[in-house]
Amino acid sequence: MEQFEGYTYVEGGVCAARGFQANGLNCGLNPNKEKNDFALVYSEGDCQTACVYTSNKVKGAPITVTKANLESSGGVSRAIIANSKNANTCNDNGIEIAQGMCKLVEEHMGIASNKVIVASTGVIGMKMSLEPFEGSMKNLVDGLSKDGHLKAETAIMTTDTVPKEVAVSFELNGKTCYLGGMGKGSGMINPHMATTLNFITTDVNISSDMLQEALNEVVKVTYNCLTVDGDMSTNDMVSVMANGFANNERITDKDENYKIVKQALYIVMLQITKMLAKDGEGATKFLECQVKGAPSLDVAVRIAKSVAGSTLLKCAIFGADANWGRVACAVGYTEGDFEVDRMDVDFVSKAGVVPVGKNGFGIPFSEEEAWKVLSEDEIQIVVDLHYGDCEAKAWGCDMTYDYVKINGDYRS
Amino acid sequence: MEQFEGYTYVEGGVCAARGFQANGLNCGLNPNKEKNDFALVYSEGDCQTACVYTSNKVKGAPITVTKANLESSGGVSRAIIANSKNANTCNDNGIEIAQGMCKLVEEHMGIASNKVIVASTGVIGMKMSLEPFEGSMKNLVDGLSKDGHLKAETAIMTTDTVPKEVAVSFELNGKTCYLGGMGKGSGMINPHMATTLNFITTDVNISSDMLQEALNEVVKVTYNCLTVDGDMSTNDMVSVMANGFANNERITDKDENYKIVKQALYIVMLQITKMLAKDGEGATKFLECQVKGAPSLDVAVRIAKSVAGSTLLKCAIFGADANWGRVACAVGYTEGDFEVDRMDVDFVSKAGVVPVGKNGFGIPFSEEEAWKVLSEDEIQIVVDLHYGDCEAKAWGCDMTYDYVKINGDYRS
Repeated sequence: MEQFEGYTYVEGGVCAARGFQANGLNCGLNPNKEKNDFALVYSEGDCQTACVYTSNKVKGAPITVTKANLESSGGVSRAIIANSKNANTCNDNGIEIAQGMCKLVEEHMGIASNKVIVASTGVIGMKMSLEPFEGSMKNLVDGLSKDGHLKAETAIMTTDTVPKEVAVSFELNGKTCYLGGMGKGSGMINPHMATTLNFITTDVNISSDMLQEALNEVVKVTYNCLTVDGDMSTNDMVSVMANGFANNERITDKDENYKIVKQALYIVMLQITKMLAKDGEGATKFLECQVKGAPSLDVAVRIAKSVAGSTLLKCAIFGADANWGRVACAVGYTEGDFEVDRMDVDFVSKAGVVPVGKNGFGIPFSEEEAWKVLSEDEIQIVVDLHYGDCEAKAWGCDMTYDYVKINGDYRS
Repeated sequence: MEQFEGYTYVEGGVCAARGFQANGLNCGLNPNKEKNDFALVYSEGDCQTACVYTSNKVKGAPITVTKANLESSGGVSRAIIANSKNANTCNDNGIEIAQGMCKLVEEHMGIASNKVIVASTGVIGMKMSLEPFEGSMKNLVDGLSKDGHLKAETAIMTTDTVPKEVAVSFELNGKTCYLGGMGKGSGMINPHMATTLNFITTDVNISSDMLQEALNEVVKVTYNCLTVDGDMSTNDMVSVMANGFANNERITDKDENYKIVKQALYIVMLQITKMLAKDGEGATKFLECQVKGAPSLDVAVRIAKSVAGSTLLKCAIFGADANWGRVACAVGYTEGDFEVDRMDVDFVSKAGVVPVGKNGFGIPFSEEEAWKVLSEDEIQIVVDLHYGDCEAKAWGCDMTYDYVKINGDYRS
């Protein structure tokens, strides 16, 4: 992970910040008893909370319930309860189940149910019952600890092959603060939304308004620049909980301290985004598209996503085929006010840089060198439009046989 | 192919209409000498002409040259010259090559070069030379015949596995007319455009304005409802040439005869569209999504395309997995003013009908029965929003290992 001045990576994921504990276990939804499927994150004090949600018209019941909870609590939360294996979406008792999960937190922990963030991920449209949660809730609460972050993270993973946790420490007016998070997601990942399940915690003292502003700004250039398969999930959610235990003076304006916290959020979300791209379903290669020389940030982001999301290009990257025409093609079908006649395209990796397009045209290159560059497991495609000063990046992965295999039989 | 009253399917593709001849051969672009790569379609008389082109910002040089030709000739054409294997796009001498191809028609056939439609398909951004065309042009012209339609069709095929030709006969005020066409395309097929290369010929006497109107209307509900991989090509073009040899009174208004011709165009384009979907790269199954009860045609088309184009659903169809939540998800991320709370979803094939969603929720169904239905090679997904009176269909195919294989190494 690249370093950022003033920020230090630390262990602990969602438990890195003071006053947070977590746990995860198998409650029986997943027949594989080795795989956790039920997660709890807990803050010792009330948290200012910011959230972004999927814009899919089909919304998981947990999204509806979380939104209502935070509205009624005035943006204050104390806990996250989440499960994998069943998305609790498009089933006729979804709201009841999601509310029931929050009630379990109230009954077992004495936390008002409207201070609970509830989330589910897994198969859509499948019958669900509260029973597995009821049977395991006591154990889940009893096992809460500072070390439980990985158990919680593994409980929200679905087809993910590796856990995704990042945390940093930094200073606000001499006070050390922590901000960390965990994410899940591997398929049904598309750029036009919040993305997947991502829970972030911090001990910074900040108003929920400022936290929401920071989240909105950061999500645009991190999670929303991620694309695995162009399918936008029904259950995507990113939440940030801030319990103020760092005892800094509360941030209520876009001052210097706001910028420091926003940068911490950016670092954590950026690194989780990259982890999500690397662990895309069936992926063998990480793909970053950097767009330079765009007339606006918006256009730069859109082009970067078009390229990183092109199914044909993703297949070419899998095959280490320097088919740069597919880059040009994907740039060309991006909506926006720009021209392609000055466009340069480079393929980049640890093995070198191969310019393949110049001024909108293909240029001769060594196939052997290009093959070497594209055979690495982290590939960067650099598109310079020479049409402005804005730049952006988007992240994705290659398209492989295994993606098809995983998704040809996900439910079983 | 379904029957339409008053229309009879006939043989002959682009040569079905009076006064049209065609030929195709291998000019050396394709190292496989058995595979044609150079095509010519010729009309004995001037044709009123209508065209639609890709909206990709990266446009093949042949698109630019064809547009300019038809502008300067007042929408009159006499011949189509086309090649596969090299898209003549993003190469620095593209315009020169495309103009040179038209000049070859002028030199060898005495047809003004601005009456030539030129098209190329294949790899983008690859150096190209006129030499192979120059060396083979005489043979190509000498071999023109009424029987040459299949030779021309096979010359424009790339990863297509089967030729795509359809023609019908019908009557206009007692005069028999013919309208037929050929199409190519297997990957880089996306709904927001004209699509792929498709050449249609007819002996109907009709003004180019009326022909263009009919083409614009029909393309919306046929080719533009096709999606294989979401990648919009740089070279897509549909042209319709009408030489008037049927001697009907010229159609210059949207009268009854206009409607009859438009329906003929619809039948031919619909059948070619379905052939393109069936022959999608690596496809093992044909997928039709029918949307009913939509508030507008536009929304119906958009939803049908979302569903037919969902990578995750395409994988599920490949695996015969009745993962109806992916249908709900794709409906949900479609832009438009509609709700999903009354939505019904059925999986349909020759093997039966399996209702899987009702009023926005999943309903119990027999997994065995669903597996039987989805194991057929033609699958229909019916989505009824119960939210209006409009309906539309879109076509696609499943996503398979072979799609990845074909596109992991297309250039070699």
